[in-house]
Amino acid sequence: MDPKITLVTLGVEDVDESIRFYRDGLGFPMREREEGSDVAFFTLKGTWLSVYPREKLAEDATVSDDDGGFSGVTLAQNVAERDEVDALLREAEDAGGRLVKPAEEAFWGGYSGYFADPDGHLWEVASPELTAE
Amino acid sequence: MDPKITLVTLGVEDVDESIRFYRDGLGFPMREREEGSDVAFFTLKGTWLSVYPREKLAEDATVSDDDGGFSGVTLAQNVAERDEVDALLREAEDAGGRLVKPAEEAFWGGYSGYFADPDGHLWEVASPELTAE
Repeated sequence: MDPKITLVTLGVEDVDESIRFYRDGLGFPMREREEGSDVAFFTLKGTWLSVYPREKLAEDATVSDDDGGFSGVTLAQNVAERDEVDALLREAEDAGGRLVKPAEEAFWGGYSGYFADPDGHLWEVASPELTAE
Repeated sequence: MDPKITLVTLGVEDVDESIRFYRDGLGFPMREREEGSDVAFFTLKGTWLSVYPREKLAEDATVSDDDGGFSGVTLAQNVAERDEVDALLREAEDAGGRLVKPAEEAFWGGYSGYFADPDGHLWEVASPELTAE
């Protein structure tokens, strides 16, 4: 494992409002959005920021947003190969983390799973790497 | 503003347990802790990760951890100069963010304030820059 946070995702009520705040207001560089996409990526140096509807983020992580147990924030480590995703999720479990969602084909074409750290903070492990357009 | 997440801080119940998970379990490189310090910094490439007692993190941000409104996660942008901190907080307010804590001298010797994005996600703006030891 080459430890890195590739992406911080904030669950938000209104992606367009978040874009107005981060891109238009604060000047964060934003990756061009795909048609109909409801995620926005801000291609910061080092770790990217993204905003995504909060209920969809919870759904993607297979957690409930109703019981107050979801922070509305996920961290992600992206790796090149799918077998690295599986290996990293196993490593997190061995380290005392909780496997929240075994890796599976993601709707966006990648391969992704989630683990929780001892406090329930969610990490997505996904392949492939993120690339700016 | 040179947009960057310098640090992601996770509020945790037990910093030692988090260190066991992230450093010992996952192999995250950790900055040497100062005597008696209750924060741990993992010096990842790009954006660092830190863990800090959740109630102290809420207190530092001057938010309540009792009403479910605190996510337990803060993002930080560190800048070189103190006047950049003030400028960035103003910029965030102008962009529609909420000033949560005006910048002030921090107990750790720096200068720090907080703003919230439209969904209440907390950003610390602080000086000086982070440096590994």
